[in-house]
Amino acid sequence: MSLLVIGSAAFDSVQTPSGEKRSKVMGGSGVYAAYAASFFTPVRLVSVVGGDWPDEFTRVLAQRQIGLEGLEIRPEGQTFSWTGKYLENMDDRETLDMQLNVMQGAYNPVVPESYRDSEFVFLANDPPASHLDLLSKLKRKPRLTVADTMDFYIHHEPDALRELLRQIDGLILNDSETRLLTGLQNTIAAARQILEMGPSFVVVKKGENGAFCLTRERIHLIPAFPSERVVDPTGAGDSFAGALMGTLAESGKSDPESIASAMARATVVASYCIEGFSLEQLERVTPGHIESRLAAFRNMITF
Amino acid sequence: MSLLVIGSAAFDSVQTPSGEKRSKVMGGSGVYAAYAASFFTPVRLVSVVGGDWPDEFTRVLAQRQIGLEGLEIRPEGQTFSWTGKYLENMDDRETLDMQLNVMQGAYNPVVPESYRDSEFVFLANDPPASHLDLLSKLKRKPRLTVADTMDFYIHHEPDALRELLRQIDGLILNDSETRLLTGLQNTIAAARQILEMGPSFVVVKKGENGAFCLTRERIHLIPAFPSERVVDPTGAGDSFAGALMGTLAESGKSDPESIASAMARATVVASYCIEGFSLEQLERVTPGHIESRLAAFRNMITF
Repeated sequence: MSLLVIGSAAFDSVQTPSGEKRSKVMGGSGVYAAYAASFFTPVRLVSVVGGDWPDEFTRVLAQRQIGLEGLEIRPEGQTFSWTGKYLENMDDRETLDMQLNVMQGAYNPVVPESYRDSEFVFLANDPPASHLDLLSKLKRKPRLTVADTMDFYIHHEPDALRELLRQIDGLILNDSETRLLTGLQNTIAAARQILEMGPSFVVVKKGENGAFCLTRERIHLIPAFPSERVVDPTGAGDSFAGALMGTLAESGKSDPESIASAMARATVVASYCIEGFSLEQLERVTPGHIESRLAAFRNMITF
Repeated sequence: MSLLVIGSAAFDSVQTPSGEKRSKVMGGSGVYAAYAASFFTPVRLVSVVGGDWPDEFTRVLAQRQIGLEGLEIRPEGQTFSWTGKYLENMDDRETLDMQLNVMQGAYNPVVPESYRDSEFVFLANDPPASHLDLLSKLKRKPRLTVADTMDFYIHHEPDALRELLRQIDGLILNDSETRLLTGLQNTIAAARQILEMGPSFVVVKKGENGAFCLTRERIHLIPAFPSERVVDPTGAGDSFAGALMGTLAESGKSDPESIASAMARATVVASYCIEGFSLEQLERVTPGHIESRLAAFRNMITF
């Protein structure tokens, strides 16, 4: 089943502690999520870029099962761009510059008519107001709607976020963001409180410490894949979320066991993402690589 | 098979963010490790306390399969005591006061003659020089010798610690301590470098983020048991290590699969430890509770 993804397409400029850097490579929450999901299912991407968006980037996406009818190019505008620097631990980062450009304010992405019947929807890291707007354009309530969010929106768009939480089935966020959203220090207690706000499951991402998924009935825990060669962590969380949603859309299921299984594939895809800058390592990966690392991973956590 | 444990027996005074406090309750790395191991196998405890050690504490230990022939009381001395305060996240803590008392300097604990044939040995958090001294008193090299260490000894006793690493089979330490010992930020790379220093396996404890065990051939990953009701984290690491060693001693095995299985039991025992101050929750727990939580835990991580 197709997966609808809305999120940013961006220019990323990244510097790592080893001194390596990349300038204006392809990034953005929508791009990472769509690319990761496309290992498992056809994707419909909705995003907005400027006239400076290189054809080459579009070609990289078009080589996958990613529909680009919803990738709107605004010729007079400039693409969203982010410049950041990772600290020594490769987990914390500093934003050096951010230009919203075409994504400024209510940027109203167009949802193509042919996408409005989507049954699986992933709202990648984007303003809650945009998420609500997109949902209002769909023909009917999807079978599964999941959103990612971040500290910025928790601080600055709390009302839209609360409304969004009432409309979605699942929320994906970082551990520090669960604390911010609830005021609770214990992330499991915090996730439980988020369930009270609407969603029927919450996936908490803990970076190199793995993730967990909480529903009203159960909890599923997963460590991160052990990576000794982290080149660039950018996009790890978005590709995790995208692969999770791609796996669910492919199976057409969203029960707790299917989510648990999807989290394992998501962990493996994210582990490939951080082995290169931008999408470069994901571009080299095949479904065979993913299945083989998944088998190794299963072996690492079975007792 | 019996497990020999050397480590501290202490008075702990603890304050938690909720404002709850306990004064001079039973603690110490040797006590927690021995108590946790005693769920699985007979334990031989070697430790030194002062004349102020309450009979009541001895009785609590004596109710378990914990041999106390090696618990030396120095009537003229005072028991090691620690006073600390946990910060809001329940993971970081501040030491407010520490009195080594009878454990000052080369405190030379006596190893009873009947303990000198021990085949499974756990050197709980204690000066590396004491660990070396104990090993020198054994009749022969044990089948499995594992040590715990901490930042203080990495800083202040690096030479004795390096010598100890050449004599042991396994090292257990916190993630921050792997970085301190190797200068490497990536904990898996750090653990791999520690393997070069002598041990054939390294167990890295990550608090609420679980643990992993690295050998030359494989890695085993385990999340922490999800605890929403953390009363007092004191002793979590020591009871994890003690339960791990107790399980291995009980089985008489130390291959990677046995270690993986022991880590799961260790995780469960540590999860009980933090549900109360001192040993209070562990005193209520039965082997039946442990097996039942272990089954639930397995279900939480299986996909």
